[in-house]
Amino acid sequence: MQLSIIKIGGNIIDDEARLSAFLDSFAGIPGKKILVHGGGKLATKVAEGLGIKQELVDGRRITDAETLKVVTMVYAGTINKGIVAQLQARGCAAMGLTGADGNAILSHKRVHPSIDYGYVGDVDMVNTSLLTSLLLLDKTLVFAPITHDGKGMLLNTNADTIAQELARALSTGFEVSLIYSFEKSGVLLDAEDESTVIPRINAADYADLKARQVIFAGMIPKLDNAFAALRQGVARVIIGQAEQLPLLLAGKSGTTIQNE
Amino acid sequence: MQLSIIKIGGNIIDDEARLSAFLDSFAGIPGKKILVHGGGKLATKVAEGLGIKQELVDGRRITDAETLKVVTMVYAGTINKGIVAQLQARGCAAMGLTGADGNAILSHKRVHPSIDYGYVGDVDMVNTSLLTSLLLLDKTLVFAPITHDGKGMLLNTNADTIAQELARALSTGFEVSLIYSFEKSGVLLDAEDESTVIPRINAADYADLKARQVIFAGMIPKLDNAFAALRQGVARVIIGQAEQLPLLLAGKSGTTIQNE
Repeated sequence: MQLSIIKIGGNIIDDEARLSAFLDSFAGIPGKKILVHGGGKLATKVAEGLGIKQELVDGRRITDAETLKVVTMVYAGTINKGIVAQLQARGCAAMGLTGADGNAILSHKRVHPSIDYGYVGDVDMVNTSLLTSLLLLDKTLVFAPITHDGKGMLLNTNADTIAQELARALSTGFEVSLIYSFEKSGVLLDAEDESTVIPRINAADYADLKARQVIFAGMIPKLDNAFAALRQGVARVIIGQAEQLPLLLAGKSGTTIQNE
Repeated sequence: MQLSIIKIGGNIIDDEARLSAFLDSFAGIPGKKILVHGGGKLATKVAEGLGIKQELVDGRRITDAETLKVVTMVYAGTINKGIVAQLQARGCAAMGLTGADGNAILSHKRVHPSIDYGYVGDVDMVNTSLLTSLLLLDKTLVFAPITHDGKGMLLNTNADTIAQELARALSTGFEVSLIYSFEKSGVLLDAEDESTVIPRINAADYADLKARQVIFAGMIPKLDNAFAALRQGVARVIIGQAEQLPLLLAGKSGTTIQNE
């Protein structure tokens, strides 16, 4: 059975018109599907409004106890329930989840030798049994980027990581397409030229592009992650613009990364 | 199959120690269960922090668009996910829901001849099929007092009403005990004396107490609601202190209202 797992970032969530266009296209794609959303600027705005200072270390936001409260409010409350209600209005049987709900995603507080990231979770386990049951009930799952440690603590968790962990875990029972929304039209040969999208890449193509140094450096971590997902059983990874979801899934837009 | 539906109010949510004691007792009760939580003072605090003025008409809070955003954040985000994570830590397979999730509870924006309550929902439909499926997956459902209108709008909805509507709807498939947490030990003959709890009341007892005017006026709306629930198929309504949940369910504390 096919399953599409789509990750959208803050750039779409912050833009009402783009979010609406995305939700139209998301509601319209057939079959089992999961949406994973990131945060966006609202959390920063709410934190500022409440006088909570954002601490940054090496350019990374630290999730202290107060920030955790804000991201839980905004991600699991405002954004998640807003998206769920809007999908319901589009006839899509959406159900919002954090990793705490039904113990969907268990994580642990990040351990790092020198930086204390605060209440940030690294994923340990995806509850495939629960998620499969919900998908078989024809529910479309909408994940906020919040997990829990099983000991009562919620943890802020990277949405890209959640999407990838869900894709990996659910590949045991589904043929998973993992779609990352991206500000560009796909993987580009020339970062400045949107017409240079590479429609398909397999591992041999990628090795060749890297050897010839014709792929720009910024894409390499994304592609490395994509090939890691393929090695973990994900059928294909697609990178492209979120509003073009049906075209992305049909391989007519964006870049499809797969083994063949 | 037995199902316990328990409503807790803001007085418990606002008190960390009481909430923790309640969650211990809730996690400990056997069988299928649903928790419905109210709001508490955090929403007011967050609204004040964000500079959102609370409008009151005839002593009732009006849910304007900004207040709806705050209650969605606080009820569906902070409170709901905090309770879910704490229940998971107690070995209880909790899953948080609003009425929008899986279209669990559909409502419409309240229509009132003279007062505009704002974004307040009156319940139209409970999705018993979804909720039964989730209960049969052994999930403990935790409802935030937020519903939706199916057209993309979230609506602030009274937690007592949600508990009663869930109890009524799920009585078609379950033997439902509906428990309202209360600041007193139960229904009292003398409002000032906690030792005058009436352990059991049926409709005949109630008619008699009312005729003799020995029941204090403040209890009458609660009891009227309880008997309405019984007429709608609910097996029993229990009123008492939330921390005494196992004793309440065993009929050893609080007041049990039932037909026999």
